[in-house]
Amino acid sequence: MREESDSFGSVEISSDALYGIQTVRTNQNLSFSGRILSQYPTYIESLAMVKKAAALANQEAGVLGKKTAQAIIEACNSLMKGQYHEHFLVDILHGGGGIGTNMNVNEVIANLANEWFGMPRGSYTPVHPVEHVNSSQSTSDVCHTALRLAIIKSFLPLYHVLEKLVESINAKARDFQSVTTIARTCLQDGVRVQLGDTFFGFSHVIKRRLVSLEDAVNKLYSINLGGTVIGSGVGAPQAYRDTVLAKLCDVTGMKLSYRENLFDAAQNMDDLARVSSELRLLASCLLKIAKDLRLLSSGPEAGFAEIRLPAVQAGSSFFPGKVNPVIPETLIQCCFQIIGCDAVVQSTLEHGELNLNVFEGAAGANILDAMTMLEKAIITFTEKCMKGIEANREHCEELANSYIPLVMELKEQVGYTATTKLIKELDKEEIKRMIKHGGIQNDASYQ
Amino acid sequence: MREESDSFGSVEISSDALYGIQTVRTNQNLSFSGRILSQYPTYIESLAMVKKAAALANQEAGVLGKKTAQAIIEACNSLMKGQYHEHFLVDILHGGGGIGTNMNVNEVIANLANEWFGMPRGSYTPVHPVEHVNSSQSTSDVCHTALRLAIIKSFLPLYHVLEKLVESINAKARDFQSVTTIARTCLQDGVRVQLGDTFFGFSHVIKRRLVSLEDAVNKLYSINLGGTVIGSGVGAPQAYRDTVLAKLCDVTGMKLSYRENLFDAAQNMDDLARVSSELRLLASCLLKIAKDLRLLSSGPEAGFAEIRLPAVQAGSSFFPGKVNPVIPETLIQCCFQIIGCDAVVQSTLEHGELNLNVFEGAAGANILDAMTMLEKAIITFTEKCMKGIEANREHCEELANSYIPLVMELKEQVGYTATTKLIKELDKEEIKRMIKHGGIQNDASYQ
Amino acid sequence: MREESDSFGSVEISSDALYGIQTVRTNQNLSFSGRILSQYPTYIESLAMVKKAAALANQEAGVLGKKTAQAIIEACNSLMKGQYHEHFLVDILHGGGGIGTNMNVNEVIANLANEWFGMPRGSYTPVHPVEHVNSSQSTSDVCHTALRLAIIKSFLPLYHVLEKLVESINAKARDFQSVTTIARTCLQDGVRVQLGDTFFGFSHVIKRRLVSLEDAVNKLYSINLGGTVIGSGVGAPQAYRDTVLAKLCDVTGMKLSYRENLFDAAQNMDDLARVSSELRLLASCLLKIAKDLRLLSSGPEAGFAEIRLPAVQAGSSFFPGKVNPVIPETLIQCCFQIIGCDAVVQSTLEHGELNLNVFEGAAGANILDAMTMLEKAIITFTEKCMKGIEANREHCEELANSYIPLVMELKEQVGYTATTKLIKELDKEEIKRMIKHGGIQNDASYQ
Amino acid sequence: MREESDSFGSVEISSDALYGIQTVRTNQNLSFSGRILSQYPTYIESLAMVKKAAALANQEAGVLGKKTAQAIIEACNSLMKGQYHEHFLVDILHGGGGIGTNMNVNEVIANLANEWFGMPRGSYTPVHPVEHVNSSQSTSDVCHTALRLAIIKSFLPLYHVLEKLVESINAKARDFQSVTTIARTCLQDGVRVQLGDTFFGFSHVIKRRLVSLEDAVNKLYSINLGGTVIGSGVGAPQAYRDTVLAKLCDVTGMKLSYRENLFDAAQNMDDLARVSSELRLLASCLLKIAKDLRLLSSGPEAGFAEIRLPAVQAGSSFFPGKVNPVIPETLIQCCFQIIGCDAVVQSTLEHGELNLNVFEGAAGANILDAMTMLEKAIITFTEKCMKGIEANREHCEELANSYIPLVMELKEQVGYTATTKLIKELDKEEIKRMIKHGGIQNDASYQ
Repeated sequence: MREESDSFGSVEISSDALYGIQTVRTNQNLSFSGRILSQYPTYIESLAMVKKAAALANQEAGVLGKKTAQAIIEACNSLMKGQYHEHFLVDILHGGGGIGTNMNVNEVIANLANEWFGMPRGSYTPVHPVEHVNSSQSTSDVCHTALRLAIIKSFLPLYHVLEKLVESINAKARDFQSVTTIARTCLQDGVRVQLGDTFFGFSHVIKRRLVSLEDAVNKLYSINLGGTVIGSGVGAPQAYRDTVLAKLCDVTGMKLSYRENLFDAAQNMDDLARVSSELRLLASCLLKIAKDLRLLSSGPEAGFAEIRLPAVQAGSSFFPGKVNPVIPETLIQCCFQIIGCDAVVQSTLEHGELNLNVFEGAAGANILDAMTMLEKAIITFTEKCMKGIEANREHCEELANSYIPLVMELKEQVGYTATTKLIKELDKEEIKRMIKHGGIQNDASYQ
Repeated sequence: MREESDSFGSVEISSDALYGIQTVRTNQNLSFSGRILSQYPTYIESLAMVKKAAALANQEAGVLGKKTAQAIIEACNSLMKGQYHEHFLVDILHGGGGIGTNMNVNEVIANLANEWFGMPRGSYTPVHPVEHVNSSQSTSDVCHTALRLAIIKSFLPLYHVLEKLVESINAKARDFQSVTTIARTCLQDGVRVQLGDTFFGFSHVIKRRLVSLEDAVNKLYSINLGGTVIGSGVGAPQAYRDTVLAKLCDVTGMKLSYRENLFDAAQNMDDLARVSSELRLLASCLLKIAKDLRLLSSGPEAGFAEIRLPAVQAGSSFFPGKVNPVIPETLIQCCFQIIGCDAVVQSTLEHGELNLNVFEGAAGANILDAMTMLEKAIITFTEKCMKGIEANREHCEELANSYIPLVMELKEQVGYTATTKLIKELDKEEIKRMIKHGGIQNDASYQ
Repeated sequence: MREESDSFGSVEISSDALYGIQTVRTNQNLSFSGRILSQYPTYIESLAMVKKAAALANQEAGVLGKKTAQAIIEACNSLMKGQYHEHFLVDILHGGGGIGTNMNVNEVIANLANEWFGMPRGSYTPVHPVEHVNSSQSTSDVCHTALRLAIIKSFLPLYHVLEKLVESINAKARDFQSVTTIARTCLQDGVRVQLGDTFFGFSHVIKRRLVSLEDAVNKLYSINLGGTVIGSGVGAPQAYRDTVLAKLCDVTGMKLSYRENLFDAAQNMDDLARVSSELRLLASCLLKIAKDLRLLSSGPEAGFAEIRLPAVQAGSSFFPGKVNPVIPETLIQCCFQIIGCDAVVQSTLEHGELNLNVFEGAAGANILDAMTMLEKAIITFTEKCMKGIEANREHCEELANSYIPLVMELKEQVGYTATTKLIKELDKEEIKRMIKHGGIQNDASYQ
Repeated sequence: MREESDSFGSVEISSDALYGIQTVRTNQNLSFSGRILSQYPTYIESLAMVKKAAALANQEAGVLGKKTAQAIIEACNSLMKGQYHEHFLVDILHGGGGIGTNMNVNEVIANLANEWFGMPRGSYTPVHPVEHVNSSQSTSDVCHTALRLAIIKSFLPLYHVLEKLVESINAKARDFQSVTTIARTCLQDGVRVQLGDTFFGFSHVIKRRLVSLEDAVNKLYSINLGGTVIGSGVGAPQAYRDTVLAKLCDVTGMKLSYRENLFDAAQNMDDLARVSSELRLLASCLLKIAKDLRLLSSGPEAGFAEIRLPAVQAGSSFFPGKVNPVIPETLIQCCFQIIGCDAVVQSTLEHGELNLNVFEGAAGANILDAMTMLEKAIITFTEKCMKGIEANREHCEELANSYIPLVMELKEQVGYTATTKLIKELDKEEIKRMIKHGGIQNDASYQ
């Protein structure tokens, strides 16, 4: 164990720990959610990228000496490779505008950098967490920027699994174009439809929402590193501010740019809230699809029974052989969670105030949660449900030939009003006969 | 036309108008919603009751002379009878903590009271809107108290229509106890159930939510009239504060009491938000019932078709004779609106601050809207839908005898694991035979 | 009075009425909200445009004779000019997928068209509401298309008032660039900021949200007229479907196009939900600005007091001369209502099912409500609040020279850690002296 | 490793594992949230209690032999002591109505029970997970009942920490009753108030919400064990159903009772949704208090500065010595999460259908999450923030003697209208003099 101290006293820390006293303080004072920074590797990597870019810019600006900068950069490289993430212990949802997150990163990097100089963990010399690792930065611009990088990076795999889902649905839809069945409106029997057309409706809405989500994510390429606390850049020398964005582009390989106005960037996190709204819209549409699959596969005998979902496991502890739509239901519950995440994000937006929205970190964490959950649920949904759906072709045929679709044909022949009258007067079999004989004269009276 | 002026200038007002310049100012400055106080008669009557009680207490405390008090009381009596409501023109959702509402009431009462003295409208003498009608009061305690009275009064008819709905469902459930049908879990065929038991589930949840809503409404009998702005009672003489609650009990015929702490009452409107939460919970449960009715009546041929909803009008401009569940869908949309009203109310709660929640009026208006809409939707739903629901007894019988309910019987005979195996090996008809012969030995192997 | 009848019986209707029995049925069965179609003139005009385009296409397709088509078109022209709107009586929120709205329009147009032929109201001949006015259409594609037209048209004035607000804020921000004041983070004293920069933050976020809202509205130019009920176009002859979009472009003067997949269009109303999400995001950002103005103008003595809002009316019935931020509070309450509207819209999206989302009309009505309210609130906010805001320049100067901004200067001179130590050891005046003398050596120890 | 198989094939399982193939299947098919059952020890213990009570009742009913029952009971006892929880691996949010949760419990208990008989893990004989451990039960009634037990048990510590918070606030309020300061309405300077009265407002609202939350939790004592899938009790012998509730009362030491109607219990989980609504209401009120503390402690110089929050750690990586309200902000973010949890719960309620709400498990998990987070956040808030708050007595005194409170005194002397006039005509110092001399005559003119 080693001892570290600050103006509030001293604490014992494991001598192996790369984090330091500020991380411990955050865990003592600001922890409640059980969700730890180490569970968000993409965010840690993004924070390390920001710190590396800052070190490069600080070196060029003469704020950091070459060796100090190099030590910090080496430390960042390790974190970017996924190393040492177990030392990120702060609660992802701690308050204080992300102070604990930034300090945890500063401390881990400082300790790694000092080891590079041959100094023990906890020495904080020659590299100091705040004086050097955090130089020219504030928690505000560091976390703002890193959160956006993390979301951009997390979006990529989500994009791909959603594209694959769209492809799977399209394949299924093409397969089902030869299946004529019944469409229902208001859940009542309606006109004939190709089962494939219903499925094309599913894929189109996902595709559209994905494009819209991508548009929202693309807005996050505008960041504010260099704006420090409130966008004015106070505390960061001009030479640093002139280069840090270019450095970050190099480090990340992304075409990042500055927000048009950096004061706005510190005040407003509506770009995150838009991403969350898009996730919610996507979730609501997926929810509808998952519920539709449950409806269409309801049965086997007492439901719609137009399709069969693949059986993946015993659906019930009670009914032997019962095949429940457990994967659509899992997707539904994932969508509920995303709706919940969005509620949090919208709250953080509404409760922002003045020159800095200090609740932005909570928004970012919930967006990352939502994306991670959705990615996982979609993979299972695509592979273990969508791909294996089969049509009950015979039953669909029967449904397509039921009464109401037939009445629709009568209407095509004799018009709305006459049909309305006829179906009151005649029984079903008589109507079927009439349809076969081409109907009667149109009787357009409205009374 | 007459002219009235204040420190911001003068305005022209119709000489017939009972409202005055402050009402006009509110309409010029704070109007956006299109919902006018005159559309909320119960709220106007409640405001008049508060003003009457205040006048009685002011008279007893010597704040108002007997004649002035009497003139104010006469004016209040007219408003309580529903007269002159067309003079309440302020936007119900104007900002400023309800200032416009209180001023509109003060002005109308003052003008009526002065007429009683033979003075013209707009004279404001001998009775002045603020000096006399509003004496010993603030907008804060007046609106706080009147909103609660209005909600209590609006709850009564809602309570009765919901009770009638419960009775109607129970009658229907008793009728349907002789109908055996299938229950679905996860929308998949499950065990047998009496259709009546499903309906008893509907009535029980409404009854429970109604009791809980009533409990929430009952909390509103605790009010704060006399606390003035922030609960301290500043501006109101002790003699007034000693009697005003008793006067309000007399005027309203309600057993009102004071909140335990009047500072709390001014700070917090969680009692309103609880009512709104209860309305939302009720709406969510009604939504589920309305959606169930749509499912159970889906068909006639391609759906569940266990019940028939009464046809009330052409359901489609397109399908002749199509009977859509238009009344359940209307109830569903009413429930959505209530969910929307609750979102507003919860926002007003979250954004309250310090010694007075100035957004309380918005909460009250949305609660009154929700209650009024729900009352109307429930009456129609009860009378034109629930009471006329019929069971498709024959089809229910068929469903009750479909495969899965039969498998359930096999399980009762041979157990879960053996059944799981058997239904893989045998076809449906063989299983039916086996069930008739009492099953086979239980084979409890789990591999 | 005249009598009209349908298969459910007959009703008495005022002989002047342009609406007919289906409108009456809708009001008897499906009315609950108190919001009547006639309060939505833009929607009525849009419905008339759709009916006119359909008549033109029906004529060209030979579905309607020239005279019948001409009579229908004349009727539509009247409605598009704002005439006869008092005959649109259905509850905007009735259930049944908009059947009542479509029937009300069909009936009014039929009665007007028959008058053109010299026939009395209620005759329904030679022009029949369903057979002719609604020919080749269903409620589904008519309402879907008309709602989108109505929202597009309602967006224009909203866009302009928001642009004017942005301009007003920018003008104010330029004026306030010469005012140095304090920025707060976590509500605690922070660095200096130009008051103008804070205001530029306000204008930038509104501008960004407006661009994003516009993008969402632009998606609504993709419509589905001709797809009839579920997108398949059943019931509409191909010749009609080949031209109706072009006719609608002519009638509206808009560059409309078809949705990529019309089945998707009937299933999914996420394009509306996106508009609503954008309205909510905008509302949340406006809410933040309105709350900031309240904070910054808090005082006059016991608050931040950096700005003064223009006084527009007496803010209190209790405090003489108290100037409350009544207009920002009105905007706040408007934003709450928009949040409520969005909750309704998102519910309609979540609860859609299968081939047609029958709750879309509720979404459209709430979006139109939100836009109308916001437009009105923004006009007042711009003209009566934003334009008149004044800075308390002297007080801002004092705040800019308070302790923490001074400490920031010390940090610039000696670094973070040394400053941390110094401010524990020295009193405020000593620190002020030290700053003047250029600080001390940087002491980088972390313990 | 051992192999287990079911009708879907076979899987390799660690030979140490107490869980079996159904748990593995659930993790393969239904996992997405990263939240594992083992993180919910109270829920595992509650499930074990339910299984124990069922075993006791099954033994008495002759469904299970004495030895089998005893083995199951021993296994349950171990789980109730917190042992073996690492074997509960299913995703708490998996779909399928909780099937995975029930199966995981059944498997762990079966394996433990078989070990008691000297059989290896994976043998499933003589005790079978479904045939014996689950006998007379379904996932539906097991999870329904256990969730309610878990929430009841989780409420107790939450209740206590909230009571302590109320006590702490009351202690602080009593201390602050001697501090006169200013109250603000609409954030504008208002009347004088004792700082203690503001704090009493805080404690009263928490107390009231706690009582209401307790009332909601108390409703959960009504459960449905014995109702099996849909409330009918099918699959459970009458002898079992006659005793299982009493057994559960014994095992838990709780006065549990049956829901009035067990069909309702399976259909509706509004009792959970009510608990969640209450948690949200509580959270919204705590949010308001936390935001008030930030406002009241804003400064030190440029804010309200009426109180000082205890400093617990460096509040900024940027400002040396800046004391940010990091603990209130942590509580705020906890409240946002609770609002998010409630959004999920309300979704599960809205989307329930027919005879069983299969999404109830998601509701339960989010309620448990909310309670756990809130408990932790409240402990820190009470101990490290509330208890250490200090009043800036001198500054409060100054605020109490600022202009507007003085004007209030003038109004007490001369009335509202006269004061309105006077404060336009006279400057502040003149008004102060006038107040000292007892004001002037009341001038009640309204023009």
